[in-house]
Amino acid sequence: ALELMPGGASPPLRLSRARGQRHVLILGAGIGSLVAAMELQRAGYSVQVLESANRLGGRVLTVRGGDVIDEIGNRQVCQFDNDPNLYFNAGASRIPTIHHQLLRYCRELGVAMEPHINANYAAWLQYDNFRGGQRMRQREFIADARGLIAELASRTLSSATLDAPLTDADREKLRAFVTQFGDLDPSLRYKGSASRAGRLGTGGLFDHDGNKTPLTQAELLSSDYWQSAMQFGESEAQSAVLQPVGGMDMITRALAAQLPGRIQTDSQVIAIRTSDRKVEVTYRKDGATHTVSGDYCLDSIPGQLLSGVDNNFSNGFRKLLAKRPRGTISKVALQMGERFWEKEGVYGGISWTDRDIGQIQYPSHGYGQRKGILIGGYYLASGPATRFTTQTAEERIASALQQGEGLHPGYSKYFENGCSVAWHRMNHMLGCTARESDEETLKVLRQAEGRHYLLGDQISAHAGWIEAAVLAAHNVLNRLEEREAAGAA
Amino acid sequence: ALELMPGGASPPLRLSRARGQRHVLILGAGIGSLVAAMELQRAGYSVQVLESANRLGGRVLTVRGGDVIDEIGNRQVCQFDNDPNLYFNAGASRIPTIHHQLLRYCRELGVAMEPHINANYAAWLQYDNFRGGQRMRQREFIADARGLIAELASRTLSSATLDAPLTDADREKLRAFVTQFGDLDPSLRYKGSASRAGRLGTGGLFDHDGNKTPLTQAELLSSDYWQSAMQFGESEAQSAVLQPVGGMDMITRALAAQLPGRIQTDSQVIAIRTSDRKVEVTYRKDGATHTVSGDYCLDSIPGQLLSGVDNNFSNGFRKLLAKRPRGTISKVALQMGERFWEKEGVYGGISWTDRDIGQIQYPSHGYGQRKGILIGGYYLASGPATRFTTQTAEERIASALQQGEGLHPGYSKYFENGCSVAWHRMNHMLGCTARESDEETLKVLRQAEGRHYLLGDQISAHAGWIEAAVLAAHNVLNRLEEREAAGAA
Repeated sequence: ALELMPGGASPPLRLSRARGQRHVLILGAGIGSLVAAMELQRAGYSVQVLESANRLGGRVLTVRGGDVIDEIGNRQVCQFDNDPNLYFNAGASRIPTIHHQLLRYCRELGVAMEPHINANYAAWLQYDNFRGGQRMRQREFIADARGLIAELASRTLSSATLDAPLTDADREKLRAFVTQFGDLDPSLRYKGSASRAGRLGTGGLFDHDGNKTPLTQAELLSSDYWQSAMQFGESEAQSAVLQPVGGMDMITRALAAQLPGRIQTDSQVIAIRTSDRKVEVTYRKDGATHTVSGDYCLDSIPGQLLSGVDNNFSNGFRKLLAKRPRGTISKVALQMGERFWEKEGVYGGISWTDRDIGQIQYPSHGYGQRKGILIGGYYLASGPATRFTTQTAEERIASALQQGEGLHPGYSKYFENGCSVAWHRMNHMLGCTARESDEETLKVLRQAEGRHYLLGDQISAHAGWIEAAVLAAHNVLNRLEEREAAGAA
Repeated sequence: ALELMPGGASPPLRLSRARGQRHVLILGAGIGSLVAAMELQRAGYSVQVLESANRLGGRVLTVRGGDVIDEIGNRQVCQFDNDPNLYFNAGASRIPTIHHQLLRYCRELGVAMEPHINANYAAWLQYDNFRGGQRMRQREFIADARGLIAELASRTLSSATLDAPLTDADREKLRAFVTQFGDLDPSLRYKGSASRAGRLGTGGLFDHDGNKTPLTQAELLSSDYWQSAMQFGESEAQSAVLQPVGGMDMITRALAAQLPGRIQTDSQVIAIRTSDRKVEVTYRKDGATHTVSGDYCLDSIPGQLLSGVDNNFSNGFRKLLAKRPRGTISKVALQMGERFWEKEGVYGGISWTDRDIGQIQYPSHGYGQRKGILIGGYYLASGPATRFTTQTAEERIASALQQGEGLHPGYSKYFENGCSVAWHRMNHMLGCTARESDEETLKVLRQAEGRHYLLGDQISAHAGWIEAAVLAAHNVLNRLEEREAAGAA
């Protein structure tokens, strides 16, 4: 029989039917919460989702023309043209194909997917201390790096230091292996690679042509591109990577459509009282205060906000919440009047730089259309993010354009409008992707406080991906079900 | 100013206006011919395209339900369901983004493009002598191969054999470079890579988890995957790669739409008489014989067929035509009732095997739909192609399915119908991709015989790509224009 879940996919969640009337309060309406609500509802639980913002999706945020960006102290109204291709995935933007659970839901719910180009050999790198700050196609650097590594490796072929004794035939195979890997010449030297690094002139695609002169070892080492950007295409986000057609929030919409009447927005939780029998949640909506009660509460309110909600959690849990880190990832989006990058042969993917913007990302959709939205800066480290987000909205755009000129000299002239999102300043959020690797901390974050369970990627060892939030929901639901089966009620 | 043609793009063709009435006969209606006809027409030449088949596009052939495959001795009617996602690009199927000329025409003519996933780390490899013939995700092999190469390279760090003297700081950088490249541990050993090779179980995406045990050097060497398939994603078809939305023949259609009334199908050339003043071409259509005359003749009839057309070419040219090789590439397409591969996390790309089928290719479009068309075999070498194409249409399907079971155990049960194309047996073609690297031969193939010029990828040093046919057209048009400018008339 065909192996349908190979390569480490966990099986789909299969909840048993609810044992009698069970009402579950779910706080927050990110993807993890919506998945939990949908699965519980399917199993016969009644669910109520409370979301403090006036929108759903949490860090799945697709910004289109006319949308308000609710960043504290920096409210913006997006000025993009009204065009289905012109959107900005301000949070999550790509789905690795090893994210089996999320992709299963998308398949089930009919969320159309298309390829997301992540690693693009044709995109650029530009490092201020590398070759006078000039940009270069990534394919050149990558091919030359492989050549260098393979050439170094080839020098060990005749030595006696290999793990296992090699026969002559083995040694010959290893020599061929190294040669193929680096595109070395028969003398095991790397002298450039036309097919990998790109050709001189137009040659090679019609006439024969020579190789480009490879980068020297010193040149290769002088650019920080190899520190991580060069390996980005080898990582979890290696090809193939997907995106929903039309924007990441198509996932939110598809899940929400399964929960008619179960989701309340603009409902800010102000108190949580949990016990071994129930959980009471008090929230404010339209100026009034309401208290609701549930058999369980699944709570994806980010730790940094939850610690400010009146609660009766244990001291250990409260202490931990008060110390939760707040990720600072920020992005700026630029509407460009012309897709000039496609005329350069760059169709999607990422160009890399050591300037604060870090990268420029190109859309993987709408090829050949007139206009496009670039991610003009993706501020991952707290230094660049802080420098970026303390600027006004206008200054952010100006600095992103100025820095991006290294990758695209003159490109500011195509700029039409832009907007930016700083996750650690976004209302109802104040942070993102607090990646936690400490097992003890994870253990506390995952512990039930009475009938209250923390939800979201914040309880995962792999925060920052939707898949982590989905697996967190599954983990919590499995624990809830075990408790029910054990007769907790 | 922005550099609009960086990285080796040749400038667009700019023909001068025709000097008076000039009529050009164009033989064959592949992409190169259509580009030549369109460019000449734009410059004021009158053009007439004669095509022997009843369809346009040459080796740009998209097969849909109901289409006839005109293979000699093996006529087939494609049985695919009538669905825009269900098509088979039997010839050209992908466009590297360095193919600037073709992409410029597509942009100009509004041919919508989308990503084509070529290298997919999630796809499989299966070699009968590797690990008992069991399939493996390519990501595992690739990560472990990088690890091996990097670990070998790391052993040279302390030696004195490097090209340039290294400072301690340089050596430290090189150590980091090698470590990053291979994902080595601090002791410069490769012990597996969770982020690259994939994780054990579901771990790592929610809980921490360990690395898979890496392949040993002997295991790595035992699979021919590294001979070329492993490097396929580094080659000219490296990411990003494109495809026209809806099938490769959207390019043909867009070009043909520029040439209303200028193209005659079912018109088989039987004689060519060339001189220094004109070219006369005799062809048969609807049982009648016609002779037309042109100031020039641009001829993309494949060499192997042209040598059978009555002609007055020079002896040297005739001799060469008679010896033209005939490429044997063949493909089989399988309509599958379920896109089972997407449930395995394989969204496009290629799985590789050492069986005759060589590869299985998955569609990069229509994700999440119910059905899909697989390329169930791609017979590149003449041995496998000959074994394949001497079978009946039914035997081809059966053998492809049987061999593909190595990559997808049990997958035959999803099979609904299929068809195949053997280019060396296709009517009006009898070959494909005769790649020529001999400079002397290319020189003869490119020489004018009176007013007759050979056209098509067959005069390129890089045959087998549409871009080569486009550059060939540009090359011929530039020579024609020079001749006109020199007052050849």
